[in-house]
Amino acid sequence: MNIKTNRAIGVFDSGIGGLTVVRSLMEQLPFENIIYFGDTARVPYGIKSVETINRYAAQITEFLIKKDVKLLIVACNTMAAVAHQTIADLSDVPVLEVIDASARIAIKNTRTKSIGVIGTPATINSNAYARAIHLLDKKAKVFSQACPLFVPLVEEGWFDHPATKLIAQEYLKSVIAEQVDSLVLGCTHYPLLKPLLQDIMGKEVNLIDSAEAMAKTASDLINKQKIGNKKNSSPDYVFYVSDLPYRFQTIGERFLGRTLGRVELVSF
Amino acid sequence: MNIKTNRAIGVFDSGIGGLTVVRSLMEQLPFENIIYFGDTARVPYGIKSVETINRYAAQITEFLIKKDVKLLIVACNTMAAVAHQTIADLSDVPVLEVIDASARIAIKNTRTKSIGVIGTPATINSNAYARAIHLLDKKAKVFSQACPLFVPLVEEGWFDHPATKLIAQEYLKSVIAEQVDSLVLGCTHYPLLKPLLQDIMGKEVNLIDSAEAMAKTASDLINKQKIGNKKNSSPDYVFYVSDLPYRFQTIGERFLGRTLGRVELVSF
Repeated sequence: MNIKTNRAIGVFDSGIGGLTVVRSLMEQLPFENIIYFGDTARVPYGIKSVETINRYAAQITEFLIKKDVKLLIVACNTMAAVAHQTIADLSDVPVLEVIDASARIAIKNTRTKSIGVIGTPATINSNAYARAIHLLDKKAKVFSQACPLFVPLVEEGWFDHPATKLIAQEYLKSVIAEQVDSLVLGCTHYPLLKPLLQDIMGKEVNLIDSAEAMAKTASDLINKQKIGNKKNSSPDYVFYVSDLPYRFQTIGERFLGRTLGRVELVSF
Repeated sequence: MNIKTNRAIGVFDSGIGGLTVVRSLMEQLPFENIIYFGDTARVPYGIKSVETINRYAAQITEFLIKKDVKLLIVACNTMAAVAHQTIADLSDVPVLEVIDASARIAIKNTRTKSIGVIGTPATINSNAYARAIHLLDKKAKVFSQACPLFVPLVEEGWFDHPATKLIAQEYLKSVIAEQVDSLVLGCTHYPLLKPLLQDIMGKEVNLIDSAEAMAKTASDLINKQKIGNKKNSSPDYVFYVSDLPYRFQTIGERFLGRTLGRVELVSF
């Protein structure tokens, strides 16, 4: 495969949650150009059917491939869980996805092999995390819990609201009862709840941030395949979205941790 | 306008919330055929931009007009708030929408002319309720509050969960402080929170259920224009959706208050 190293990394997500992955990529790979696509018109994916998620994921993959990216990163856990094969089939460049990346970190760090996973209903129902973890270690025990209210709570900005705490306590009850030593935050929105989740799980439980795991895996692949950008100049970041909804700028910058630069609207 | 009376009423919504309107229509107009469209693939609309909501609303209007409906009912407050004109321009049959219907009931029932309105961010930001109420009575005072977490809480089925109560108390604080005597539930999901909202607002506050208001307005128009179905036989109900998501049947039947019959999948 002949890859021009200044080609961008394509990152895609169901909305703006994937900006947490971009943020980690910017930190770990500061010279890489990045093209992001967020399907903000059709977010959230976590409550859609497998068929619809696959259809939408195919549209986005084709869009980014046309932008001549050198690597595709599926930041959205839901898409990774149910549409990974569709995306890989359409892509002529390497495809990395957040579930495999997080599973690797979880297995690397667990001592007791008792691992909790939280995510959207679509991610949890797909059983993709349990499959990915068992592929790496058959003896690991995985305890999963869907947390459908976490995405809207994060988008509302209620990171440490008493209601969020109450909801998190209820969702995490069963995972805590299983005495897991690691908890995979299997949705790009969840890292913003990290302090609250750590507080509820207890400080001895290792929280695995899927955004950081993803950036680490991307960095390893880029180094291994020697496709890192040779130009050590200020990189280009372009953000494509399918809608510019209410409070897009505010919420987006909260996820990215900095000002959003060039944002372009695309409609399918 | 030549309208065959056995033609169906077309009802459309961003998802399944509009089934509360269908439920009221079934009760108030038991012989009418109904065709429902719920955009379950792209729900929720309340957080999208005005442009995207208009584009989607136009697609659905064209779909239902082709189904030869005799009347169009916009059950979704968000679509009514920002896309009413687009829908009316595309339709050759009467269009009724939930905001005008609810505003009429609010003005009819208020004693103090101090009215609260709750809805999605898109509905509240559009100011459509305040405009509709002021068209009917210039002296009325309208106090609005967006409640973005109510839709996901209802879809989770947490109608009387302590977290829902906590969130509702926070959202309603400012409306309660204005001493409104009526509160418009400006979203088709909210009627399922009615007991909890009544408890927080106090029993002297009149809660206006936009689903019931809509069915009453439709019933009045049908009687006035003499377009009621002449056949007093068991009517046909068809439900079109753009996705069959996780828990569709369970949640849909909770809204409709009975078994869902014929459900068909359509993708745009």
